[in-house]
Amino acid sequence: MCRWLAYTGSPVLLSRVLYTPVHSLIDQSLHSRLGAETTNGDGFGVGWYDATPAPGVFRSIEPARNDQNLRELAGHISSPLFFAHIRAAIGSAVQQTNCHPFRHGRWLFMHNGFIDGFAAIKRDLVLAVDESLFPQIQGTADTEVLFCLALTFGLEDDPPEAVARAIGLVEACGRARGVEYPFQGTVATTDGESLWVFRYSSQGKSRSLFFTRDVRLLRQHHPDWEVLREVSDDARLVVSEPIGDLPAAWVEMPEASYGVVSKEGDRLLPFAPRPPSTAA
Amino acid sequence: MCRWLAYTGSPVLLSRVLYTPVHSLIDQSLHSRLGAETTNGDGFGVGWYDATPAPGVFRSIEPARNDQNLRELAGHISSPLFFAHIRAAIGSAVQQTNCHPFRHGRWLFMHNGFIDGFAAIKRDLVLAVDESLFPQIQGTADTEVLFCLALTFGLEDDPPEAVARAIGLVEACGRARGVEYPFQGTVATTDGESLWVFRYSSQGKSRSLFFTRDVRLLRQHHPDWEVLREVSDDARLVVSEPIGDLPAAWVEMPEASYGVVSKEGDRLLPFAPRPPSTAA
Amino acid sequence: MCRWLAYTGSPVLLSRVLYTPVHSLIDQSLHSRLGAETTNGDGFGVGWYDATPAPGVFRSIEPARNDQNLRELAGHISSPLFFAHIRAAIGSAVQQTNCHPFRHGRWLFMHNGFIDGFAAIKRDLVLAVDESLFPQIQGTADTEVLFCLALTFGLEDDPPEAVARAIGLVEACGRARGVEYPFQGTVATTDGESLWVFRYSSQGKSRSLFFTRDVRLLRQHHPDWEVLREVSDDARLVVSEPIGDLPAAWVEMPEASYGVVSKEGDRLLPFAPRPPSTAA
Amino acid sequence: MCRWLAYTGSPVLLSRVLYTPVHSLIDQSLHSRLGAETTNGDGFGVGWYDATPAPGVFRSIEPARNDQNLRELAGHISSPLFFAHIRAAIGSAVQQTNCHPFRHGRWLFMHNGFIDGFAAIKRDLVLAVDESLFPQIQGTADTEVLFCLALTFGLEDDPPEAVARAIGLVEACGRARGVEYPFQGTVATTDGESLWVFRYSSQGKSRSLFFTRDVRLLRQHHPDWEVLREVSDDARLVVSEPIGDLPAAWVEMPEASYGVVSKEGDRLLPFAPRPPSTAA
Repeated sequence: MCRWLAYTGSPVLLSRVLYTPVHSLIDQSLHSRLGAETTNGDGFGVGWYDATPAPGVFRSIEPARNDQNLRELAGHISSPLFFAHIRAAIGSAVQQTNCHPFRHGRWLFMHNGFIDGFAAIKRDLVLAVDESLFPQIQGTADTEVLFCLALTFGLEDDPPEAVARAIGLVEACGRARGVEYPFQGTVATTDGESLWVFRYSSQGKSRSLFFTRDVRLLRQHHPDWEVLREVSDDARLVVSEPIGDLPAAWVEMPEASYGVVSKEGDRLLPFAPRPPSTAA
Repeated sequence: MCRWLAYTGSPVLLSRVLYTPVHSLIDQSLHSRLGAETTNGDGFGVGWYDATPAPGVFRSIEPARNDQNLRELAGHISSPLFFAHIRAAIGSAVQQTNCHPFRHGRWLFMHNGFIDGFAAIKRDLVLAVDESLFPQIQGTADTEVLFCLALTFGLEDDPPEAVARAIGLVEACGRARGVEYPFQGTVATTDGESLWVFRYSSQGKSRSLFFTRDVRLLRQHHPDWEVLREVSDDARLVVSEPIGDLPAAWVEMPEASYGVVSKEGDRLLPFAPRPPSTAA
Repeated sequence: MCRWLAYTGSPVLLSRVLYTPVHSLIDQSLHSRLGAETTNGDGFGVGWYDATPAPGVFRSIEPARNDQNLRELAGHISSPLFFAHIRAAIGSAVQQTNCHPFRHGRWLFMHNGFIDGFAAIKRDLVLAVDESLFPQIQGTADTEVLFCLALTFGLEDDPPEAVARAIGLVEACGRARGVEYPFQGTVATTDGESLWVFRYSSQGKSRSLFFTRDVRLLRQHHPDWEVLREVSDDARLVVSEPIGDLPAAWVEMPEASYGVVSKEGDRLLPFAPRPPSTAA
Repeated sequence: MCRWLAYTGSPVLLSRVLYTPVHSLIDQSLHSRLGAETTNGDGFGVGWYDATPAPGVFRSIEPARNDQNLRELAGHISSPLFFAHIRAAIGSAVQQTNCHPFRHGRWLFMHNGFIDGFAAIKRDLVLAVDESLFPQIQGTADTEVLFCLALTFGLEDDPPEAVARAIGLVEACGRARGVEYPFQGTVATTDGESLWVFRYSSQGKSRSLFFTRDVRLLRQHHPDWEVLREVSDDARLVVSEPIGDLPAAWVEMPEASYGVVSKEGDRLLPFAPRPPSTAA
């Protein structure tokens, strides 16, 4: 099972979030509590925003916990918005081009879960990818195809609609090939300004997703968690599995929902895929 | 520029061919004489046949000359038929799944050259790949798509016809997108019994390809080349660039030709792509 | 916690032992039952004997379970005697030169465990390594130093004595620096003919070590374990953790003991380190 | 032959220096003009200073020119002082822990060249390393030992003296073992404030080393070299081989000399190793 984390708030060293907390993301790569598989060792990636127009992305196929380069970068890069992902490969090759997050222009995209029966429907899905995006597919992961479908369906203009159409197409193609539950997982995407996160599965039993209740509350309950004193009050973490030992600090995203974190405030809304026939 | 080598003859340790000769394939990865680029460091691969039905394939993205694992394997694996390839990436990612040789069942396939304008025509080409083969595409290299096209067009039954149709389709798709010279290169393929090698380019200026004149002759002229005393009289090397220092030992494949090395004897014949409209 | 396996018997494809059995070594890299840590992802290695004088060694820092090259090699290399090791790094860098098994001439050596306080006593230990062996140290693992000490103390002539002196020196140097329990672990070494395995820890709580009771017995109880029908009656597996689901098939090595598997028959004897002052 | 580059001046994106100029360091890894070997593909490293007390270090064993992570980092990290190094392995293993620059506290150290007969004198040299530094040796490269010797001899207090004593010891140990010319190369070291560079070889035929004459002059002659418009007038590059096509822009360091670039101004002075017997 993959693990991911999205941070938005005042700029912070990546290492403060990735390594320091109790049961951090890196620890989780060794000892997951909620995941379907206990080990996450098939590569990892971080994507971060800074003064440069497009985000930076660092990806590696070595186990995250012992990767010296990740430790170096995390100790030197500060960012107000970053993604981190640890992969458990399901089928596709362990290679950098299959590591999350994926990037297109200013956008990042990552996923914990899978497209069931991907080998059988991959051809149908890539045929639906916009021709201009097709040559940019660099790996063989299901998530990269999902990202390209979302871009094809207008991710840059209306992320919830685009993701609903992308997952709707995955479900339609999968069911046409006899796959009972074609989609599973949680997804995060961002343009460097706002953050969209999704929790959905065809079966209605989606992988977990949590966000922090309020930094001011967390500070009270985690006085030993130093990073909380460094970040702004509006800082927000969204994670596939809670970090630290205070369950009350986390809110679980409901089944079939999506959330937006933006300057206009945060929203939590229901999510449903949009089947191809109903697309505008 | 890539480099490749195909050996067929009595079983020999891979290291005897890959490392020992003067100006060996591994040396060539450092100091190519005829290549378009002087360095070949973007991964390598070897494929070999033994008692197991399917050939073994070892691929790595580390530079071949210092790869300790390649040295170990080459010193312990004997084979009567093997391929070795050193890659110079042109566009696609440096990852194991893009390293040659590619394998399908009992077949191996490798290539020195490129499909020009591949990004622009990749979609057209993969749409022509047989649907059952589509999910087996694991990397993003042009050669893997060429191999899948050749399989689609009957490589396992008639290799010269299948390769002619595959390159014919590449040329047709390329020219439809305004690419002047869509195909360049030399190709080798085998089923573990016979060996087919091709030299062709749309421009008529193909990358070099050489085969050994006769092992008995080579032995006379290279008394210091020990491996020649170990191999059978019918042993044959086909290489992208001559090995050793005796030009007379090598025969250059003519422009637009292909050769077959098999138990029924060797043949050298003209090669021409078959455009899609003329396919049977 | 590391995992290791040693096989001796009639030649068998490595894959038959490494991948096929229930709860195989590769599975154990994901879900260890007895290990101190549940994950083993910091590199692996195999060493095998064939017609070549020195054994072959293949080592990689990628997780074993998804390493395509290991799968290929294991499916093509047959051997009457081989070692396999999956590493959980404790302190030293994740790099090929720190992966087991280590090799010197015809000898292989591997270890599950550690030298406690290694950083503090490493200098003392390497000073005791024979000067001719010193330049051959290629990595920074404690086990490589232990191997060089055993070679210094005559491993090639009397393995139990040499290992006793090596561990004795480790304990003496460690205690001189205030380390309470300097040595922990199980060790295997071979010259390609006989196999020596050791179980010992300064604390008297050594990591587990098991050997197969008798292939004929195993065949009766594991009729579905195909590899058992392929190997000779005298085949023997020694493993850090049992493979398969029949505890009765395995004999646990006693605390502080060593075993020899050779043509002269098998022996199981008590083991005690030999302190430096008592060395002959 | 290795290649290295040291930059000091106003903060600049690493990519502006590493990738943009004509005949850049990355290009040089493919087509060296002055080097002893034409290819540099055995790993690379960058070390940079920012607001964090210790410098960051990123090292990889993949060829630099196609390393996507290096490209990402170089496009996102700005620094007023950084080192970059591309390695051509001579003897020691291709692994991250052998890649330059090496780091200790706030110090970085890199080298183009070698200690001749290193295997024979390595033991003598590491015995001279301060015991507290010994456990910090993580790789097997001659340069790491040289760095530890320089630290032992007071690098942090008086770099020219410490480097003179370290190379003096190398020469003494080498000659005692019959090595005619024990040391070859150029060295750079920094504490994040000042930069020291050395050019010396026992034979008096040292590898090349160049520094930029004056940024204002370079701007006149390289109007197309954009990075020159971004950096401060006191920016300084020191390189193992000139970048760009204007020889007049570069000053070659004399044989047996060292230079200091600091806030107190730049100096160029003669360098001579200090034999052990003459050390204070």
